[in-house]
Amino acid sequence: MAGVKKLINDPAEVVTETLDGFGAAHADVVAVHHDPDFVTRVGGAVSGKVGLVSGGGSGHEPLHAGFVGVGMLDAAVPGAVFTSPTPDQIFPAYQAADGGAGVLAIVKNYTGDVLNFETAGELAEAEDVTVRTVVVNDDVAVEDSLYTAGRRGVAGTVAVEKIAGAAAERGDDLDAVEAVAKKVIANVRSMGVALTACTVPHAGKPSFDLPEDEIEIGIGIHGEPGRRRIPLAGADEITELLLTPVVDDLQLASGEDVLLFVNGMGGTPASELYIVYRKARALLEARGVNVTRSLVGNYVTSLEMQGASVTVLRLDDELTTLWDAPVHTTALRW
Amino acid sequence: MAGVKKLINDPAEVVTETLDGFGAAHADVVAVHHDPDFVTRVGGAVSGKVGLVSGGGSGHEPLHAGFVGVGMLDAAVPGAVFTSPTPDQIFPAYQAADGGAGVLAIVKNYTGDVLNFETAGELAEAEDVTVRTVVVNDDVAVEDSLYTAGRRGVAGTVAVEKIAGAAAERGDDLDAVEAVAKKVIANVRSMGVALTACTVPHAGKPSFDLPEDEIEIGIGIHGEPGRRRIPLAGADEITELLLTPVVDDLQLASGEDVLLFVNGMGGTPASELYIVYRKARALLEARGVNVTRSLVGNYVTSLEMQGASVTVLRLDDELTTLWDAPVHTTALRW
Repeated sequence: MAGVKKLINDPAEVVTETLDGFGAAHADVVAVHHDPDFVTRVGGAVSGKVGLVSGGGSGHEPLHAGFVGVGMLDAAVPGAVFTSPTPDQIFPAYQAADGGAGVLAIVKNYTGDVLNFETAGELAEAEDVTVRTVVVNDDVAVEDSLYTAGRRGVAGTVAVEKIAGAAAERGDDLDAVEAVAKKVIANVRSMGVALTACTVPHAGKPSFDLPEDEIEIGIGIHGEPGRRRIPLAGADEITELLLTPVVDDLQLASGEDVLLFVNGMGGTPASELYIVYRKARALLEARGVNVTRSLVGNYVTSLEMQGASVTVLRLDDELTTLWDAPVHTTALRW
Repeated sequence: MAGVKKLINDPAEVVTETLDGFGAAHADVVAVHHDPDFVTRVGGAVSGKVGLVSGGGSGHEPLHAGFVGVGMLDAAVPGAVFTSPTPDQIFPAYQAADGGAGVLAIVKNYTGDVLNFETAGELAEAEDVTVRTVVVNDDVAVEDSLYTAGRRGVAGTVAVEKIAGAAAERGDDLDAVEAVAKKVIANVRSMGVALTACTVPHAGKPSFDLPEDEIEIGIGIHGEPGRRRIPLAGADEITELLLTPVVDDLQLASGEDVLLFVNGMGGTPASELYIVYRKARALLEARGVNVTRSLVGNYVTSLEMQGASVTVLRLDDELTTLWDAPVHTTALRW
């Protein structure tokens, strides 16, 4: 275990043991399936409702299994840590989520995920399960990256899953759920910062080196390089470095309404997330932008990485109503 | 800022800036007061209801302000990081929480907290606000410690606040709310482990040194020493070291029902908490104990410390009903 100071047993069993604990703790909300691994709502597919499926590498908990439940996902597919799930995991999740009205897959833009969800979709179509896919690419830090063509999908994924989930829950058809998911994707942007690296259990050493007096602006959720390294700065200065590219990319105008979401990377105290939120909100308000909805917490993490990301979603009445709709998952509930 | 790799500005402003962000993000649930600092429900005291107040040093977020809201606390009083709030902060919180039926203060057993809440109670009595105090001492790791006479109060505090809060919300009088709080205290026990230390912002260096290959069993939530240091071990072995003293101290018998609560210390990935939960549950079930309620997450933290604690609460029908009662706070909601 040298070099891995973690509450784990065999590194090869981390995902399985996590799922077993998760399923036992939340048996009123989710059902955990093994061989292959995927998570569904405890009651299975809802007849006549569009099924929502997401997934990706583990290590970003509560994403995605924490968002399975009424008002959000029907199924989630966890891969190995920071590794895409395989098509033979995703395909049965599509089947389990299909209530006869088709399935929408919400995929973060990483090459492996996009390919594997696509292959699984082909398997599903051969079994007469209709699958549409939307790809989330909210990270404004980099165009193309270590693992992607185009921008990466990061914390904005939570907004896509919540809002598309609410649309599916109220009975929208596949075309409509896909359309609203794409509307969220078109209006959500994020950027993150890392103060420390994280260690993948089976790797046994940090994914990258970050000197004690430097931080990485524009970090990816797997510790991929961002825009640049800078000396450690105050929270207000860092928040401005994250928020400005987000606001510029969205071309936000005075008078617009937004959801402001400050996400913790896993190892960041809640107090620091609220300090960042406070400054991000002040910067938005100084531009005349109205923060009408908020979310602060660890929702899309990178194991024990210390850092945070700032996500802004442009809201209209439709998106606000769907954001506010009831949700009953293990990680998001109102 | 050397030595403090945190998303903060001036270390002296951490608590104020955290409260400002917290209040702005959750204006539908809480109201933040300054000079002195305390947090109340947005609507203030509920007429005729017993008021519930808690508080303590900051750095344990979401404890306590995250538990202000319907079904739980009426007010919370945050001190400086790892430092008791002062009587002149606590006294106005008592006044603000008093709906005419008296106030119950829930205090973790640290000498400074106990003294300051007592002094504030005397100030309140002089203004005809009746205050009773219960002291939580659930940590079985040590008898007496760096900051206490008797056992320390740790994660079990969440169960006291939730269950007493539900009793107050349904209209129980001060005697009854005090009695049920004491019943929870008598039936809840915890023990924790630290994998890494944490750094108090204004201190600028870690609170203690923990070698790369050692962990501290029985750690306190301020990094105070526990029972002993041992070489890093697997999660299952560590979980057994935490759970066994808890179960023994409770003298749990086969056939009893419990709440199993695995709490993250702030810097621990959710996956690791579920791995610990899974083992703790298996150990309880092997003893014939029924885990009928569960809670897993970061609820009583120590800044960015990596580690976890295991809490067990013996349940009967009354405590189960009160645990299940609706709660609408920023950190606990159902």
